[in-house]
Amino acid sequence: MTAEIISVGSELLTGTVVNTNAAFLAEQCVTSGFDCFYQTVVGDDKKRLEETVKTAEKRSDIIFVSGGLGQAEDDITMQTIKDMYPDASVVELENHNGSANGCILENQKKTVILLPGSPKELEPMFKEQVSVYLQEKTDMVIRSRTIKICGLDEKTINDSIKDLFDYNENVVLATYAKCGEVHIRVTAKAATEKEALKLTKYVVKELKHRFNQSIYTTHEETSLEQSCVDLLLANDLRISTMESCTGGMLAARLINVPGVSEVFKAGYVTYSNKAKRKVLGVKQSTLKKYSAVSEEVAREMAQGISLLTKADVTVSVTGLAGPDGGTKEKPVGLVYIGCNVKGKTVVEEYHFSGDRTHVREEAVVAALALLRKCVLEYFSEVTFGKKG
Amino acid sequence: MTAEIISVGSELLTGTVVNTNAAFLAEQCVTSGFDCFYQTVVGDDKKRLEETVKTAEKRSDIIFVSGGLGQAEDDITMQTIKDMYPDASVVELENHNGSANGCILENQKKTVILLPGSPKELEPMFKEQVSVYLQEKTDMVIRSRTIKICGLDEKTINDSIKDLFDYNENVVLATYAKCGEVHIRVTAKAATEKEALKLTKYVVKELKHRFNQSIYTTHEETSLEQSCVDLLLANDLRISTMESCTGGMLAARLINVPGVSEVFKAGYVTYSNKAKRKVLGVKQSTLKKYSAVSEEVAREMAQGISLLTKADVTVSVTGLAGPDGGTKEKPVGLVYIGCNVKGKTVVEEYHFSGDRTHVREEAVVAALALLRKCVLEYFSEVTFGKKG
Repeated sequence: MTAEIISVGSELLTGTVVNTNAAFLAEQCVTSGFDCFYQTVVGDDKKRLEETVKTAEKRSDIIFVSGGLGQAEDDITMQTIKDMYPDASVVELENHNGSANGCILENQKKTVILLPGSPKELEPMFKEQVSVYLQEKTDMVIRSRTIKICGLDEKTINDSIKDLFDYNENVVLATYAKCGEVHIRVTAKAATEKEALKLTKYVVKELKHRFNQSIYTTHEETSLEQSCVDLLLANDLRISTMESCTGGMLAARLINVPGVSEVFKAGYVTYSNKAKRKVLGVKQSTLKKYSAVSEEVAREMAQGISLLTKADVTVSVTGLAGPDGGTKEKPVGLVYIGCNVKGKTVVEEYHFSGDRTHVREEAVVAALALLRKCVLEYFSEVTFGKKG
Repeated sequence: MTAEIISVGSELLTGTVVNTNAAFLAEQCVTSGFDCFYQTVVGDDKKRLEETVKTAEKRSDIIFVSGGLGQAEDDITMQTIKDMYPDASVVELENHNGSANGCILENQKKTVILLPGSPKELEPMFKEQVSVYLQEKTDMVIRSRTIKICGLDEKTINDSIKDLFDYNENVVLATYAKCGEVHIRVTAKAATEKEALKLTKYVVKELKHRFNQSIYTTHEETSLEQSCVDLLLANDLRISTMESCTGGMLAARLINVPGVSEVFKAGYVTYSNKAKRKVLGVKQSTLKKYSAVSEEVAREMAQGISLLTKADVTVSVTGLAGPDGGTKEKPVGLVYIGCNVKGKTVVEEYHFSGDRTHVREEAVVAALALLRKCVLEYFSEVTFGKKG
C-alpha cells in the first residue's frame, strides 16, 4: 500500500517551524509497511489544499494530512477535506493533549487521516489510535524492533550488515545515524504475529552477535544516558563527572534521566586551567608539561574527582572544541576522555570533526560509551577473576 | 515572484532525516521577498522527480531543488533536470564544503536552482552565491534585521506589535518563537537600499522602544549566551554556576561561546541534597525547613558559590523538572533561579510547563535572562548612585 504525507501550515512555508511531523509520519509509514513516495507542504488555503489532496489521491491509498484543525479563522483543513469527501465514513480521533480532534475519512478505496499540527498532539494521537487502525486495515502483521549502537560509525555498521538488507523481502532494515550513535530498525511483515516475530528475531539475533557490547539497548524508548544510569544502578555505583570542553553537557545528559539522584554524586565544570588546579588539584607541572588537552590531564582529572567525591565511577573530558586554539600537534577536535572505575583508570584519545557544538556533542556520546565499556569490562574481569 | 522548494532524497521519505533544508530555504524566500506556496519531498526517482518539477514549473517562477547531486548511482537530480532544460543557460555554483557543485538553470521565464542535500554544503552555498544572484534578479532591494528578545512570551510580544504588522505593505514582520526566546525578523523591500534601510530602521526603533532591555541583541548571529558573555567581558566580571535540575546545561550553554574561559570560573552540578551540602555548604536546616526547591536554597546556592569561587557573578538553579516528585505546593515545573552580582542576590520563582527536557531548557534560558537583567540593573544602579 502507498501512503502520502501532506503538512498544512504557513509556519512551515515561511520556515518558522521545521517539519518534524513529516519525518515522524514517514517513519511510521516505514514501520507500518507502507511505501511513501511524496511529502507536500501547503498553506492554509482552500484551493491549494484541495488541489494537493486531489493530486495525492491519484497516486496514494492513504493520505495523512496534518495541521490546520483548530478553531482559528485560518484553520480550514477539516472543513475543506470533509467537503471533498461528503460520503466518507468518519472515525473520530480524540486529542488527549490539545483541543482539536483528528479524524479518519474512508471513501471507497481511499483513506484520509487528519491529524493536529502540534507534534505533541500528533505523535500520541498516532501511537494511541491511528497505528491500531492501520494495523487492522492491513492483512499483514507488522512487527519492528530497534537496536541502538554507540561507539561505532555508520559506515562500519552498514558494511557489516549488507547481507542482512537482502535477507528476506518481508524484512526491512533501516539505519538512523544520530550524533555518535546508530539505530537500526528491523521491520518484518508476515501473515501472523508469530511469523513476523520469528523474522525479526532472527535478524536481531544476528545483529546482537555482530555488534555485541556496542549495542546499548534493544528498547525503542531507552536512551544512551538511561542505559548508563541503569548499568550504574544495577551495579550499585555512584558517578561524578569533571568536564572541560563539554562544559556540563555530560552531566546534563545524565541528569536527563529521572531518578538519577540515586547514582549522580556531583559534576564539576572546570573550563580554565586555574579551575582545574583549584577545584581538583590537577598539578601545575602536568598542565605545563603536557598541556590541558592531554592524556595525563584527563587521567589526573578522572583520578582527582574520584578522590574528591569518593564516587565509584568518574568520567573526565578535556579537549579542543575550537574554532581557535588548535595546533599541528593538538588540532581542533582532539579530545581525551578518562574513566575511572573503582581505582582503575582508562584514557582514550578521540579526533572529532565539525564545528564547536558538534565536537562537544560527539565527545559527550563518546564519554557515555566509554563509561559503559569500562563498567562492563570491570565487571567481566571481576567475574573472570572469580572463575579463575 | 513565487518560489517553490523541492527536496530530493529517500532519507527524507523514510523519516531518517528531518527536512531542515526546506525550512532554511523557506526562510531565505521570505527574506528575499518571494512568495512560497509549496514544498515537496520526492525520492531519487527520475519519473517522479520530473513530474514534481513540471508541476512546480506551472505555478512558480523559481524552483529550488536540493539533494541527489553526488556521484552515487542513485543521485539522479542533476542529469534529470538538465535533460528537462536542454536550452537553459547554466551558472555553476561552487561547493566549498563538499564535492558536488550546484547550478542555476535559466530557461526563459523560469529559474531552477540545484543545491546539494547536506545542510552544511547547502547553507553556505546559498549565502555566498545564490543570495547574490537572487538579489540581482529582483528589481527591488531587500534588507532585513533581526531583533532577539528573552524573558517575554510570544503572545505578549505579538499583542504589542500588532499595529506594526500593517505598518507598510513593503515591510514584513515575522516572529520566531524559540525555547524561552522570541526573534522578530523585519524585512523591507524598496527601490533603493536607502529606502529599504529607512523602512527597517523605523520598525527596529519602534521595537527597541517597546521591548527595551528585553532585547538582548539586534545581530542575527549573536546568541543569548554570547550576549551574556559579552556583557560579562565588557564589565570585567567572572561567573560561576551552581545547578541542580538543569544539571550542567547552563554551564554548557555559556561554554558554547568560544573564548568563554576569560569569564567562566567554575560550574558545579549538585543534583542531590547531599551534594548541595557537601560541595557548597547549603545548610541541612535550610534544606529541611524549605526543601531543596525553594527560594531560600536558591539564595544559599548563589551565595555559597560566590564565597567558594570568588566569582563576581553567580547563578544558581534549583527546580522540579519532573516527571515525578511534584506536590500541590511544589508542582513539577517550579524552578527558583538565584543570581548574585557582587554581593547583591536576587531570586526569582518560575513555573514552566512541558516535559522534563522542556522545563530544564526553559530554566536555562530564564537563568541567562536573569543574569543579563541583574548585571544591567547592578550597573544602572551604580551609575544612578554616582549621578545622585
